Amino acid sequence: MSRVGVWLVGGRGSVATTAVTGAAAVSAGLAEPTGLVTMRPPFTDAGLPGLGELVFGGHDVVETPLAVRAARLVDGGVLPVGLPGALAGALEAAESEQRPGITGLDARNDPRGCITRILNDLRAFRTRHGLARVVVINVSSTEAPVPEHPAHEDLTALLDALERGEAIVPPSTLYAIAAIEAGCAWVDFTPSAGARMPALEALAEAYEVPLGGSDGKTGETLMKSVLAPAFAARSLRVRSWAATNLLGGGDGEALSDPTRAASKLASKGRLLEEILGYPVEAPIRMENVRDLGEWKTAWDHVSFEGFLGVRMRLQFTWEGCDSALAAPLILDLARLSALALERREAGTQAQLAFFFKDPAGTTEQSLHRQYELLEQWVGTEVAAP
Amino acid sequence: MSRVGVWLVGGRGSVATTAVTGAAAVSAGLAEPTGLVTMRPPFTDAGLPGLGELVFGGHDVVETPLAVRAARLVDGGVLPVGLPGALAGALEAAESEQRPGITGLDARNDPRGCITRILNDLRAFRTRHGLARVVVINVSSTEAPVPEHPAHEDLTALLDALERGEAIVPPSTLYAIAAIEAGCAWVDFTPSAGARMPALEALAEAYEVPLGGSDGKTGETLMKSVLAPAFAARSLRVRSWAATNLLGGGDGEALSDPTRAASKLASKGRLLEEILGYPVEAPIRMENVRDLGEWKTAWDHVSFEGFLGVRMRLQFTWEGCDSALAAPLILDLARLSALALERREAGTQAQLAFFFKDPAGTTEQSLHRQYELLEQWVGTEVAAP
Amino acid sequence: MSRVGVWLVGGRGSVATTAVTGAAAVSAGLAEPTGLVTMRPPFTDAGLPGLGELVFGGHDVVETPLAVRAARLVDGGVLPVGLPGALAGALEAAESEQRPGITGLDARNDPRGCITRILNDLRAFRTRHGLARVVVINVSSTEAPVPEHPAHEDLTALLDALERGEAIVPPSTLYAIAAIEAGCAWVDFTPSAGARMPALEALAEAYEVPLGGSDGKTGETLMKSVLAPAFAARSLRVRSWAATNLLGGGDGEALSDPTRAASKLASKGRLLEEILGYPVEAPIRMENVRDLGEWKTAWDHVSFEGFLGVRMRLQFTWEGCDSALAAPLILDLARLSALALERREAGTQAQLAFFFKDPAGTTEQSLHRQYELLEQWVGTEVAAP
Amino acid sequence: MSRVGVWLVGGRGSVATTAVTGAAAVSAGLAEPTGLVTMRPPFTDAGLPGLGELVFGGHDVVETPLAVRAARLVDGGVLPVGLPGALAGALEAAESEQRPGITGLDARNDPRGCITRILNDLRAFRTRHGLARVVVINVSSTEAPVPEHPAHEDLTALLDALERGEAIVPPSTLYAIAAIEAGCAWVDFTPSAGARMPALEALAEAYEVPLGGSDGKTGETLMKSVLAPAFAARSLRVRSWAATNLLGGGDGEALSDPTRAASKLASKGRLLEEILGYPVEAPIRMENVRDLGEWKTAWDHVSFEGFLGVRMRLQFTWEGCDSALAAPLILDLARLSALALERREAGTQAQLAFFFKDPAGTTEQSLHRQYELLEQWVGTEVAAP
Repeated sequence: MSRVGVWLVGGRGSVATTAVTGAAAVSAGLAEPTGLVTMRPPFTDAGLPGLGELVFGGHDVVETPLAVRAARLVDGGVLPVGLPGALAGALEAAESEQRPGITGLDARNDPRGCITRILNDLRAFRTRHGLARVVVINVSSTEAPVPEHPAHEDLTALLDALERGEAIVPPSTLYAIAAIEAGCAWVDFTPSAGARMPALEALAEAYEVPLGGSDGKTGETLMKSVLAPAFAARSLRVRSWAATNLLGGGDGEALSDPTRAASKLASKGRLLEEILGYPVEAPIRMENVRDLGEWKTAWDHVSFEGFLGVRMRLQFTWEGCDSALAAPLILDLARLSALALERREAGTQAQLAFFFKDPAGTTEQSLHRQYELLEQWVGTEVAAP
Repeated sequence: MSRVGVWLVGGRGSVATTAVTGAAAVSAGLAEPTGLVTMRPPFTDAGLPGLGELVFGGHDVVETPLAVRAARLVDGGVLPVGLPGALAGALEAAESEQRPGITGLDARNDPRGCITRILNDLRAFRTRHGLARVVVINVSSTEAPVPEHPAHEDLTALLDALERGEAIVPPSTLYAIAAIEAGCAWVDFTPSAGARMPALEALAEAYEVPLGGSDGKTGETLMKSVLAPAFAARSLRVRSWAATNLLGGGDGEALSDPTRAASKLASKGRLLEEILGYPVEAPIRMENVRDLGEWKTAWDHVSFEGFLGVRMRLQFTWEGCDSALAAPLILDLARLSALALERREAGTQAQLAFFFKDPAGTTEQSLHRQYELLEQWVGTEVAAP
Repeated sequence: MSRVGVWLVGGRGSVATTAVTGAAAVSAGLAEPTGLVTMRPPFTDAGLPGLGELVFGGHDVVETPLAVRAARLVDGGVLPVGLPGALAGALEAAESEQRPGITGLDARNDPRGCITRILNDLRAFRTRHGLARVVVINVSSTEAPVPEHPAHEDLTALLDALERGEAIVPPSTLYAIAAIEAGCAWVDFTPSAGARMPALEALAEAYEVPLGGSDGKTGETLMKSVLAPAFAARSLRVRSWAATNLLGGGDGEALSDPTRAASKLASKGRLLEEILGYPVEAPIRMENVRDLGEWKTAWDHVSFEGFLGVRMRLQFTWEGCDSALAAPLILDLARLSALALERREAGTQAQLAFFFKDPAGTTEQSLHRQYELLEQWVGTEVAAP
Repeated sequence: MSRVGVWLVGGRGSVATTAVTGAAAVSAGLAEPTGLVTMRPPFTDAGLPGLGELVFGGHDVVETPLAVRAARLVDGGVLPVGLPGALAGALEAAESEQRPGITGLDARNDPRGCITRILNDLRAFRTRHGLARVVVINVSSTEAPVPEHPAHEDLTALLDALERGEAIVPPSTLYAIAAIEAGCAWVDFTPSAGARMPALEALAEAYEVPLGGSDGKTGETLMKSVLAPAFAARSLRVRSWAATNLLGGGDGEALSDPTRAASKLASKGRLLEEILGYPVEAPIRMENVRDLGEWKTAWDHVSFEGFLGVRMRLQFTWEGCDSALAAPLILDLARLSALALERREAGTQAQLAFFFKDPAGTTEQSLHRQYELLEQWVGTEVAAP
């Protein structure tokens, strides 16, 4: 199988650096494929590209080289001591494929120009490496929610507005447009707008490329998508589900900005009601605790009612390393989206719901049913053309 | 539909009392069917007997009347204030159907005599109420594990040994034999031996009655059967899973006896490896804390490994009321076993795995797959005779 | 010893109702003195008024009678079933001494008139019952923080401004002025302004009455005042201390208003740095979870550093019933303030720090040192006049 | 001030290695004195020996060199990467002063010979380095409890029995006798018998040397000694206090042996009743979880009763690194015992209770009162001889 491009928006961030390092490490036999969903059956038989066949590049507004970021991730306990050194070549290769990202200001001043620039970067990447398929994945910082605009609903109106230089979409959407127009798959691992508007879904269908998203499910919401179905199956009534997320480092800082947090909270909040079928008092807090560094700790307090109204409680704390949880999913999504490209699947890919807090194309929020959907999709033979 | 007998071994215990009270309360519209699995679709369309059609009786070695037990359960916060009074008739009716249970001594002295006595009690119960079907469910105290004996494997040898008065099976097995010979369904909600031996499976098939068990899954193990599949699906490697169960009241006392606890621990221990596919360091402790009364609190500490070997942790505490968790499952099992009797299902009923820590007839330990099995079974039309 | 008046601002609230019920219950031998600090040595020998010698009255803007509130507290699990009925006389007596409270609007329209009205109510209460001493304790809802004003610093300026009808102090301060002018002790169990301004301290000294406050310490902050000194004593460096408080019922609702929460957070926040001697990243969240009713659950996550920089963690959850924690402290404060009145202690009473999140008159925040201060004060013989 | 010898029984273990490394690191300015109690006022003015003045040696039955152990502690996250290398000289110096320890077999075969051998090692150590004072601290594995024997009560009887070769004391006691006879201070950081018998107290008084112990208080018990006094001060009645300790590595293994665990449990169990003044249902479990390595996690579940019998709960989890918690206390105890030697304090040193689960010479179990005792002792001028 020929090589597959993986273009990461936020290509020098912690998640991207961990993904690049990890793909090289597992591929070289220096690490187990722990955390990689697609390295186990039935995915191993699905004709997915090998980890060693992935070629990494990306956009970033940050200039800190991947090697420096990797060293910081070693200090933070995310990467093993010595690993970035052993894989310096892979980090350098990805570093040489980083291009300047677009800022909010760029996006407002000249949206069409931004798209063109990204498009050119993607095409050049594809040509330079002779890549049959490229997957673009957004792992950059969460944007603030975007005010609604009628053109988001209508492709022609949106393209016209962009031609006129109207600033009605955020950078993530410009990246998504460029990715689609370049014939790449687009996946959004963040809750930013990206391709989550009818106009972009229409664009993806026109270009026959797959879309995946939104907002990678790595911790507290993952637990909710596992536990809530169990309460439902046992007919135990959830009365309240209060969640607190302590986030260190960059993620915490970004989400301590209430407008950015709004995106995240919206994508986390829909789930319980969709699984349980009734509204639940379910406050969610994001707290920036710089001291936690690359780690996050979530505490959830669930109060539920059993037989004859007896009140009971479940509490859990989840202590996870965000980049280590997210990075393998990026590799899984790259491999699965490459298969979707090969199968000429156009538009929203509901079978990727397993990976996301706010799955596009489905209201299925139960983790195990999402997993079954993914297994089924992978097992389905693509119809002969 | 005609009435269905529910005969509870341990008929004056907390679980039995809560089940009798709850069936009456829900049936009378005094309580919601919270915690009852079979009161929701697709089970509502499956032709199960109504809660009001259940007639309760039982054996017990204890003589405390159900009304007294119910009053204690009010004090312990299990039953709402005033409810037992409002349902005094239902409690009295069940009380009038209690018969003296058999003790370990009885079982050793005259096993065949015990069977006969139970058999007569069951037949009289059926006749008295004109019951088409009777389900016998064991909710008595956990027995110590039984030494293996060759006759456990062979029905003829077992029946011969019992005729000769050999004390090679515990009371739970004598109850199971009597139930089967009386044409009743047998369900074991405890980890006691009961019908879990080839000889009794053969007997059940000969009598064309269904068997269900073992050991109701109501708390910490329920959580394991929900969470472990999520670790597997995400390819996160569980390194250790240490569980502590603080148990109040009678359950705690019974399990503070190490030989009885052995039964419980065995049935709790198989699950993780069966779900994850590899051995896990997973100590389980049962601690008697009388102060907790009818409540139990479990704390689980899960250490797992993610991408590139990063170590993370999940901890949870589950604070549940044992009787309130178990009682509705007893009613579910009674209704489902009545359907199995009607369908003439003979022998071990694997589709009941959803309810048990140590499911008979299957190694499926994942809660959501067990639920799917149950849904499928219920949805299947019974073949025309 | 003659009888002592206890006048509660917020006299029909949960805390007041629990205090009135509890004083009668313990006094009548219907309950143990659990939770009462002053019913144990050395306080039993300090000449404090007996619980049966306390006469209750209060102001409230709410009109729900104490008996109705008490019934709700039974439903909420705060008061034992049957207790309010057994003590109906005591509840009625306190109910007959409730007077309409002053609202924010009253306070803005006619501050001096409010003071006069409260003063008259207090004097009439004292006369009606022939009370030698009266203690006024604020247990009403938390007010929003008050904008600073120069007259807060200067007694004459403040009294002049109030004469002119200037609305520069909140209701709690008007209550405090009236209490002082009536020769009563004033205690603030809330974080409201009350007497926490130099002008009122001067007034209290002029009238020779004691002041106590602020903000009763009943849960998460209590734990902080116990645990932080241990980290200090062991030279373990606290790196971050994140606190989440889930609050049900009225308290949660009041504190979900960010301006009111500001008062509470300020009084909770000073403590760690005062104990540890260095600044700590210590976010505190208050979350309204109506479902929790009279209960609150706090989760604290403490990250600390040990020898050679090793990072460790302490987490705790505190599940408490707010009224049950606060009410006995109200009785303790009433008794101790009565003693302070008898001893003619004028102005801020630092020895009451043990009871408060934001102790007036001291920066001592360590619970055990606060306890020692209180013991010493009680043990000191008052000098002959 | 002249140099002080610190002789560690278990001199090549994790605690000893961390102590040796840490003393050198702090002394060289490579690490902060975090976790060291005696590096803060008032101890800084007490004339304690400097960390750089401590000379380390020890006995061990294990032959793994300190440098190898230090490397493992780096892997286990206890020592910072690079630190053992930077301090290789200090580790080598301590390694050169390791002597073969005595085994249980040695102790049974020739107790008096063991004492003589230890005595010679200690005297040679003192002479070799010209040490004015030597402190011997036991940090070896916990021994099983010792059967009582009349000679434990009587010094003459004990010495006679040892002369006759009677095996009535364990190795720890032989070490203690040798230490005392060599004029060294003896401190037991383990729950082993050591000097905890009247005969040895008499010996220490005869030789005018101080004794300290037993069983270092570093985690779950530390928390108990902090929290229980708070429940007492607030008159909240503790109903049950269930503790679970998950222990990795060597400590876990040793304590999974029930006879050894018995020593530990006895020393942990007395505390609650001594602080609270009434018996509490307080089961304690030690669980070996190899996966946890150098770390231990404790979960405590405290059920308590407040005003009018309302039941509430406190739960905590303590995740600590045992060696990092213990090692600085070893250095504190060495420095404080050196001062006691200088002050010619003979026999049990109750002021060291702050460090121990089972303090010798006092029943004071409250951490803050123990701290005050230590402060007072340090502040006391030694009387002129």
